[in-house]
Amino acid sequence: MSSPLFVDKSDCSMHTIFPGVTVSTAAGNEMMLSYVELEPNAEVELHSHPHEQVGMVIKGSARFIVGEKEQVLTPGRMYVIPGNVEHRVIALEDGCEALDIFHPIREEYL
Amino acid sequence: MSSPLFVDKSDCSMHTIFPGVTVSTAAGNEMMLSYVELEPNAEVELHSHPHEQVGMVIKGSARFIVGEKEQVLTPGRMYVIPGNVEHRVIALEDGCEALDIFHPIREEYL
Repeated sequence: MSSPLFVDKSDCSMHTIFPGVTVSTAAGNEMMLSYVELEPNAEVELHSHPHEQVGMVIKGSARFIVGEKEQVLTPGRMYVIPGNVEHRVIALEDGCEALDIFHPIREEYL
Repeated sequence: MSSPLFVDKSDCSMHTIFPGVTVSTAAGNEMMLSYVELEPNAEVELHSHPHEQVGMVIKGSARFIVGEKEQVLTPGRMYVIPGNVEHRVIALEDGCEALDIFHPIREEYL
């Protein structure tokens, strides 16, 4: 395993996953870091994946809809999304940045 | 598993792990979020654990010593610490806050 110990966003693999939504990813062996940036009102559309997802909002705010629950999260608020639970995230007018972590690695974002 | 989907730091389990170093933790099934706060110049002493650890500095700055590598990390800088690699973290004079994620769960911090 040759992943660097210290990672700058500029070292990351970057993907635009929805209009106005980019992810910058770095992988360890079992977990993937994904720094996600949503432009104002941008949306991560309803989806699910078998990977567990945890994270924290870093800047701005977004409405998180996870299964039957819904909440607007602001910086410092954390979330735990079990595998296979449908979720959707809509940035408010200030946009949103969040750090997501997945287990296992999402191979499509390497 | 009844972990809440949305987690505030005030909902977390809190532990003082070294003088001036507290962690606020929340667990999913496979990963644990740990919001760590270091007072100015506080130190997470040299240690290791079998768990993989990834994370990002949120506020302030700290010197991270991981295996043979050393770097001062500031907000937005991420790190990937493989299991069983010795590491040590020393906050600079502005203190430091970081979000750590562990896999698997660190049972001692539930």
